[in-house]
This record gives sequence, structure tokens and C-alpha cells, in this order.
Amino acid sequence: MPTQKLTGKPEELAAFIDKFDIFLFDCDGVLWQGKTLLPKTAETLAHLRTLGKRLLFVTNNSTKSRATYKTKLEELGIPCEADEIFCSAYSSAIYISRVLKLPRDKRVYVIGEAGIEEELAAEGVSHFRDEAGGIRPEDYDNFGPDEGVGVVLCGLDHEISYRKLARAYQYLRNPETVFLATNIDSTFPTHGKLFPGAGSMSAPLTYMTGRTPVSLGKPSQAMMDAIEGVLKFDRKRACMVGDRLNTDIRFGIEGGLGGTLAVLTGVSTEEEILEEGATIVPDVYLDRLCDILG
Amino acid sequence: MPTQKLTGKPEELAAFIDKFDIFLFDCDGVLWQGKTLLPKTAETLAHLRTLGKRLLFVTNNSTKSRATYKTKLEELGIPCEADEIFCSAYSSAIYISRVLKLPRDKRVYVIGEAGIEEELAAEGVSHFRDEAGGIRPEDYDNFGPDEGVGVVLCGLDHEISYRKLARAYQYLRNPETVFLATNIDSTFPTHGKLFPGAGSMSAPLTYMTGRTPVSLGKPSQAMMDAIEGVLKFDRKRACMVGDRLNTDIRFGIEGGLGGTLAVLTGVSTEEEILEEGATIVPDVYLDRLCDILG
Repeated sequence: MPTQKLTGKPEELAAFIDKFDIFLFDCDGVLWQGKTLLPKTAETLAHLRTLGKRLLFVTNNSTKSRATYKTKLEELGIPCEADEIFCSAYSSAIYISRVLKLPRDKRVYVIGEAGIEEELAAEGVSHFRDEAGGIRPEDYDNFGPDEGVGVVLCGLDHEISYRKLARAYQYLRNPETVFLATNIDSTFPTHGKLFPGAGSMSAPLTYMTGRTPVSLGKPSQAMMDAIEGVLKFDRKRACMVGDRLNTDIRFGIEGGLGGTLAVLTGVSTEEEILEEGATIVPDVYLDRLCDILG
Repeated sequence: MPTQKLTGKPEELAAFIDKFDIFLFDCDGVLWQGKTLLPKTAETLAHLRTLGKRLLFVTNNSTKSRATYKTKLEELGIPCEADEIFCSAYSSAIYISRVLKLPRDKRVYVIGEAGIEEELAAEGVSHFRDEAGGIRPEDYDNFGPDEGVGVVLCGLDHEISYRKLARAYQYLRNPETVFLATNIDSTFPTHGKLFPGAGSMSAPLTYMTGRTPVSLGKPSQAMMDAIEGVLKFDRKRACMVGDRLNTDIRFGIEGGLGGTLAVLTGVSTEEEILEEGATIVPDVYLDRLCDILG
């Protein structure tokens, strides 16, 4: 079925909203742009809550825990609960503890930041990471494939180092070590530019080992599996809302959700949405999220 | 023509040596293993010199300048001159100055170590690199595609950082910025293990930009072009000697050299050399380099 732009007719908007019990929101480009909240975002979310809808904020951001991300949303003017937030640090922790069911005597070696550690700790998963700094002479002899590491987990790490890559590589030479990434986005937007994303931290490890990590971020269905690992919901009564066709909308379509809604306040354009032969097409789209208010 | 093992017959060895005026040697796995010189290496090289042969030491090592590499060879017991050494830091500098002919008002942004800077300076190429350390708040606004950078050059860097990758990425978003790598080896052997190689420094940039760097290391013919940029020699009277089929021997074959000689003291095995259907086959091979003495 071709996509269509939702008109502003109250009955059409109401009929669309009525189809769903839960809305999954991408954040940057949907709720805000950079550091600026988009118009009437808070009112839109409040309206959906009034109608009894559940909200879930689903982000590939891997540096923040749910608790820290909740603070970010509230500072931007969006009231929410930590358990309404699904960031890729959290989805990784859930995946390791509840889907992989990593044995308690195995540890996770983390390339990433504090948010990942907080979420692993909350799930009771043993883990460690290296502080910033160069490789040390003793590393060459000490680094090895053992040390009880069952998983290497790569997220965005502003202190990525040769030492971390060298250590992770030794673990990954063992084919039984599971290779995970919070997400494989090559870049992410900040300060009006693109900067290296989490996928660029795992890229050298992929180049060295020939192994591709399982991604716990959109559009990977491992993230949907992680969401289902903690939340029970009817996929047919769920709608994914996002600004990127190849991550958000694809995530919703491949997850078999009841609906997908694209907004034009982020990366993907109306031309891309309407392009002939496009393979990833949202059910409906709007200029801005708040247009759903009519 | 199938490969063959040189017998120890003096006339056969002499006939082989007589075919060449210059021998190009890979180093690790041919002349030494780790920190240990292989048997009679110095005598073998001295013998070839006595016969009037020119010697060239060709290595993908990118962290050392020729001057520093000469010291390394001499400490291992191999007398040599700096101009007999062709390391990938040097081939990169030659390629930029003599093949690309980078305009004098353009600079090279270097991810790598001191050897690259020394060689670029010796060729009079403007360049800069960042010291170790994390990204700084002002970087997000300051980093941009301009700054007169015409080339990004990536080599092995034990202090690779997010800051360096983020800066290089901004330059490479400009399609006119040339993307070079000293070599694209994913790993290199040291301390009896494999550690991340120069190619793992450029891998995130390739992942972010979709661009593949021109490699100035074996088996890339850009390295052969760089050698020809400074040395005149008849390729048909040159022999490449190495331990790796897919780098050294391939480098010699694709470069149209008169001969290739594999030795079994490094990575490739006799089984690989004799494997049916192998596409990269040396003209001849020996157990050890010194067997050429008879």
C-alpha cells in the first residue's frame, strides 16, 4: 500500500491514533533537533497520554543510561519515566542478561561509556572496561583470549584507544566470544555536523576479525527482542514514529508493528518517502509530530 | 609456470642470482623473526653485495623513518644505508610529493607516528597531526572540511583517538581531499601475537565515508610507483623476496618484476605455495633465505 500524508481532519487523526495502544518514538529529529525541542512536543505527548496511550522513547544513543536519558528529556521539557526509555545501552544489557542469558561466571568487556556500565550493573551482569590511555608495555604479553570474557560489547566511546581495540581483538579471536554493538551507526549528528558513531568503534574489530557484531540498536530486531524481553505489548497495536526511513521506519516494518509514522523534521525527506521504487515506506507521514493534534 | 623449490646445487643457485641486479626484501619473516635474526642473514646479504647486487629493504612498517629503521637493522646485525630502506612512511611521503605533486599550499593531516612526520618533513610536505588526548568541547564547532588539508594519511597510531577520527572525517567529507593509508594491513605480528595494524586505523574512516584509501604499502602498486619515483631500476632484473604470498609475492608479480622468491620462515607455508589452484605463486621458494648460499 502506498504511503500517504495524514490530513489534518480530526476524524482521520483520531482514527489513526485509535489503532494503537503504544507509540514508540525515536527522539532526535522527532521530539527535538539538536538541543531545541520541536513545537508542541510536550503537548502532543501529553495528549497521547490523556488518551491512555503508552509511550516508549527508543534511541540508539549508547552513552547514557535510562536514568540519565530521563534527565535529558525532562530538561528539554518532556516529562517521562525511566521505564519508558529504551536506549541501546539498556537494550544491550537486557539482551545479554535475558536473551543470551550469559552465565554468571562470564564477563562482558565494554568499549563504551558510563551509561553502558550502569545498565549492565542494573541487570547484574559482570563487566569491565579500560580507562583512557595508551597501550602499556606489559599489555603485549598480558592480553589474551581468556580472562573469562564471554561478550565484547562496543558502543560509542569518546576515549576509544589502541589499547581497547587490541584487548577486544584478543577476546574476539576466540570464536565463542559473542560480538555485540549497541548500534552500528557510522556517524551521529551533533553541533550541526556528523561525528563518528558507535559503529565506527566496532569497525576496526570487524576489519580485523571478519566478524560482524549483533547490533542492539535500530533497525536491528535484536533491539525489538530486547524490548519484548521487558515489556509485553501487542505488536499489531504498536506504532513506530521516526524521522529516518532506514533505521526507524525499517525497525517498525521489520518488527511487524501495526503502523509506522514518519515525520519530516529530521533526516529523511518527503522526496525520499515518495520516491518510486522505495523499499522502506512508512504507512503515513506528517510534516511535524505535533500535526497529529490537528 | 609452476613454482619450484630451488635445489642447493651451486650452478642452479648462481644461475638464479645472475638473473637479477636488485633484490627487494621483505624484512620480518625473511631476515628476522620477532627480535631474532634468522641464521646467516648477514652473510647472505653480504654475499649478494659482493656479487654487485643492489639490495632494497621494503617494509609496510609505518611508524619508523628510514633513519630509525636503519638503526633497527644495524642493531639486529644487518649493515645497510638509509637509502636502501623503503618503509611505508617513506613511500607515502614520496607518493604525496612526487606522484600526487601536492601543491605547496596544501597540508597533510596525519594519523600516525613520528616516522611519518620525519619522512614528510624530509620531502618538504606541510603536515600536522594531533597529540594524544580526548575530544575537546571546542572541537565540535571548530572541526571542519577546510583548513587547507589536501590529504588525510593514515598509518599505525598507538595513540589513535576519537578526536583524530572526528577531525579526519570532516576533511574526508570533502571529496577532493585525497585519502591515503601507509598500508591497509588489518593486524601485524608482535610479541608472538597479532595486534591492530595500520588498516585498522583507517577502517572507521572507510566505514563513515564509504571511501577506500589508496594504500602505500605492499601489495599496492602505489608503493612500487613510489619506489620508481626515487630509484631507477629495470623491473625485469628485479626479484622480490618475501614470506607472505598475498602481500610480498603478489607485490612482485603485479609489479611485473623479473622474479619472486618465497621463504618459509614467516607466514606462508609450503602447503599454501603448492596448493592446487593457487593464484599467487612465487617463481621459486626456499626453506630459508640463507639456503641461497648453497
